[in-house]
Amino acid sequence: MMIGKAGAARTSICTADAASITVRGHDLCDDLMGHRSFTDFFFLSVAGHLPTEQQRFFLDVLLISIAEHGLTPNAQAARMTYAAGPDSLQGALAAGILGCGTVILGAAELAGGLLVKAKARVDAGEDIDAVARDIAMTTRQAGGKLAGFGHPLHRPKDPRTERIMTLARDQGVSATHCALASAISTAADTAWGKPLTMNVSMGIAAVLLDLDFPASMIKAIPLLARTAGLLGHLAEEQRYPIGFLMAAKAEEAITYFPEQEAGA
Amino acid sequence: MMIGKAGAARTSICTADAASITVRGHDLCDDLMGHRSFTDFFFLSVAGHLPTEQQRFFLDVLLISIAEHGLTPNAQAARMTYAAGPDSLQGALAAGILGCGTVILGAAELAGGLLVKAKARVDAGEDIDAVARDIAMTTRQAGGKLAGFGHPLHRPKDPRTERIMTLARDQGVSATHCALASAISTAADTAWGKPLTMNVSMGIAAVLLDLDFPASMIKAIPLLARTAGLLGHLAEEQRYPIGFLMAAKAEEAITYFPEQEAGA
Amino acid sequence: MMIGKAGAARTSICTADAASITVRGHDLCDDLMGHRSFTDFFFLSVAGHLPTEQQRFFLDVLLISIAEHGLTPNAQAARMTYAAGPDSLQGALAAGILGCGTVILGAAELAGGLLVKAKARVDAGEDIDAVARDIAMTTRQAGGKLAGFGHPLHRPKDPRTERIMTLARDQGVSATHCALASAISTAADTAWGKPLTMNVSMGIAAVLLDLDFPASMIKAIPLLARTAGLLGHLAEEQRYPIGFLMAAKAEEAITYFPEQEAGA
Amino acid sequence: MMIGKAGAARTSICTADAASITVRGHDLCDDLMGHRSFTDFFFLSVAGHLPTEQQRFFLDVLLISIAEHGLTPNAQAARMTYAAGPDSLQGALAAGILGCGTVILGAAELAGGLLVKAKARVDAGEDIDAVARDIAMTTRQAGGKLAGFGHPLHRPKDPRTERIMTLARDQGVSATHCALASAISTAADTAWGKPLTMNVSMGIAAVLLDLDFPASMIKAIPLLARTAGLLGHLAEEQRYPIGFLMAAKAEEAITYFPEQEAGA
Repeated sequence: MMIGKAGAARTSICTADAASITVRGHDLCDDLMGHRSFTDFFFLSVAGHLPTEQQRFFLDVLLISIAEHGLTPNAQAARMTYAAGPDSLQGALAAGILGCGTVILGAAELAGGLLVKAKARVDAGEDIDAVARDIAMTTRQAGGKLAGFGHPLHRPKDPRTERIMTLARDQGVSATHCALASAISTAADTAWGKPLTMNVSMGIAAVLLDLDFPASMIKAIPLLARTAGLLGHLAEEQRYPIGFLMAAKAEEAITYFPEQEAGA
Repeated sequence: MMIGKAGAARTSICTADAASITVRGHDLCDDLMGHRSFTDFFFLSVAGHLPTEQQRFFLDVLLISIAEHGLTPNAQAARMTYAAGPDSLQGALAAGILGCGTVILGAAELAGGLLVKAKARVDAGEDIDAVARDIAMTTRQAGGKLAGFGHPLHRPKDPRTERIMTLARDQGVSATHCALASAISTAADTAWGKPLTMNVSMGIAAVLLDLDFPASMIKAIPLLARTAGLLGHLAEEQRYPIGFLMAAKAEEAITYFPEQEAGA
Repeated sequence: MMIGKAGAARTSICTADAASITVRGHDLCDDLMGHRSFTDFFFLSVAGHLPTEQQRFFLDVLLISIAEHGLTPNAQAARMTYAAGPDSLQGALAAGILGCGTVILGAAELAGGLLVKAKARVDAGEDIDAVARDIAMTTRQAGGKLAGFGHPLHRPKDPRTERIMTLARDQGVSATHCALASAISTAADTAWGKPLTMNVSMGIAAVLLDLDFPASMIKAIPLLARTAGLLGHLAEEQRYPIGFLMAAKAEEAITYFPEQEAGA
Repeated sequence: MMIGKAGAARTSICTADAASITVRGHDLCDDLMGHRSFTDFFFLSVAGHLPTEQQRFFLDVLLISIAEHGLTPNAQAARMTYAAGPDSLQGALAAGILGCGTVILGAAELAGGLLVKAKARVDAGEDIDAVARDIAMTTRQAGGKLAGFGHPLHRPKDPRTERIMTLARDQGVSATHCALASAISTAADTAWGKPLTMNVSMGIAAVLLDLDFPASMIKAIPLLARTAGLLGHLAEEQRYPIGFLMAAKAEEAITYFPEQEAGA
């Protein structure tokens, strides 16, 4: 049975015959292999066309910025899964990828949404700083969280965001979205009455939007980046296992408390 | 409780403090972001050290070679999963990654194992062609499958393998493992009495071993590569959905056959 | 680092020592094994206490109602994944579970939310039929979808919903939520000017709420139920593989259309 | 393209039309819902036919025996995944299922394989105790692990195995496979010179084989059972989160050790 309404039965990604593979109009073997970097390929795959030199440069920057942060919960989940099923590297990787949820690596998308809305107001004639102050104040007063701000470790600055913003400025890439990110950062410090870290997710979103990346890139970047990091963790787990040890330590830290739950 | 024996409670991948992140001894922000490509980072992550220029070049080649092949079963699984749960890109990606199993993308590891054993015989003094003939003949006579050979579409040649081997030769990278791959290919044609495609998995394994990549790389490459391809499919699925349509067509092709199974 | 604020370091589910395992205050071996059904155990696990006889009866009914519907997209994804990686049954199962998303099996939760809101209005003094008409009309006029209604195959009635509702009526379990479901069904037919199928998700939600199941049960039921169904598909795939065949048929149905995408 | 050789394009599991759903020849609504337990359904799904009363009783026993063991590594992975992506219950469940690998929950299959081989020798005329002694001694001398024996916590007895074996004896179900399990247990104590726990996986395998369950059941049981347990953990995580807290404790226990790896 067909669920929902059927659209056109077509794909524009890839076709192949016995002697060749074509990806987005490019011959995989002759035009891409040996001529392009994997980062170029990733951009082509998601965006549908090859990146400019500058887009490629910053895609490398952004991918590296978010690829690794040590024994994060999802790196632990991947390593525990690998320890339990060492014959399935793909299973352990998948477990790690499933932990790239809204709370952790999904923040870039939320930050991007914030910037897109703010940009629309600026385009409609409002002042950047006024928009930033309004967003920060409104969010603060509603008791909400400001997407792209806050970090459990990197305080008062996230070094990755600093680096992204510096590179964007130095290379003349910064435009309205980066300006908005900075203005919101200043306004947030005032609204919260203390420095609020502009985290890496906001840096990624701002540069990505100023460089005219496709919208779908914003979720794809953290996922590909973290995949590289997770594969590193799994290579280490294979040689120096700590998965079960971490699980034992985590278990020890939790007490059994027999609650009589009336209705759960 | 501790499952198995506990090893050392340590990791060598990453540490972080408020102002910096260190990956494998490199400052992530100052030394890697803006200076290195994502491909370099991936090598660092899995191998523990940065690649040589040549290793980086070929890692790009190998990643691109295996990243995309259209609507493969796991790309379909990812797209169907995304259609069913569009709020979880990571879930759809994970479903696609789970399909990178031994039958499809796991072949590079098997091919690598074949080459490693063959290389040991050559190092011990045996002749390359003799070793190749022995492997092909023995496998054929035992009715077995030759790892790294055969393809449902690319016949008699896999254009990706051709391209990998040409680049390796042109850049002076080909050594014993590449020579063994070619020799086994020739011997296989004879043993089977027809051309047997040397597929991309054998090409990846041969170059990777001749370039002294770490062993763990051989499984990591197809997984990272296919992640990039899958993210492209999911970006397309978001805009031009075909997941449920493919499922409807597949379902139509299968007939219900009420079997009375005695014991299953 | 601690992400977010740490809560109490405790669990109420299970504790174990060398000689015993205690689940929610019950000795697993002496009190549950041999005395209780797996359905009882599942209720205990999610709700925190054992079910009444009636709750257990209807939990069996609801689980069976949603466990199997042939070659659904996620059953296909599971079978394709198994075909590609036959050494990892858990990987194939996980792929199938990932397809239990909002569009397909998540509908019960949405339907439950609808009923909870409607019930609050009835409790506040509004008439059941008036509430139902208001919900149907408002949703229709806003061009929205009515949670728990519509099915691609079962028209005009979903036999599973019929059966659930009949059993609930016969056993005196039907109360306000079931009455609301029926009233909304009638109102929807009027609002849409044609019969709209009240699907199994609405049936599950209504009975579950009238029987005072914990809220978390509403998502857990389809997941456990479908797991049983998927394990059946994977057992069949092992003996009579159709995973790759379905993928080939689905691929054939899709045409490559080389689109020059300007921005994707 | 078709990967491998295409088999028959058929399924025997389920068919549906507008008014009915048929599972393995049974009308889902009329014959199963309200008449059968979910355990019956699961057996039907995997085995292809309904269980006997005794098979159903022991399937309940076995499912419950392996469903829950507190904060196991995969329960932790599921909870960490849920904490990171609370909008995807299916993603968190999938992460937990991926940790049901060979090292932890896959042991039942290995234990079953051991018993099947041993049974073949007994059927061929060898003495049960002699076969058991030979298996234990040969494994011990080869420095191998005895499938179905050993447990990090339950020593010297696994209370679940004791309970399973007692129930099997009391109900007259014990036959050659159970006898072999006991004999191997005795022989193992001698071979290792200390009590070796016969764990729950061996208990499951022995009873399942003596009750003539289909072979595919042996892997399906731990997966379905643990799914129920995981859904309980995720319901608790929703109300009383400990996922990130466990991750923080596990991370604290691991030291960064900057290793200069020469080749990884």
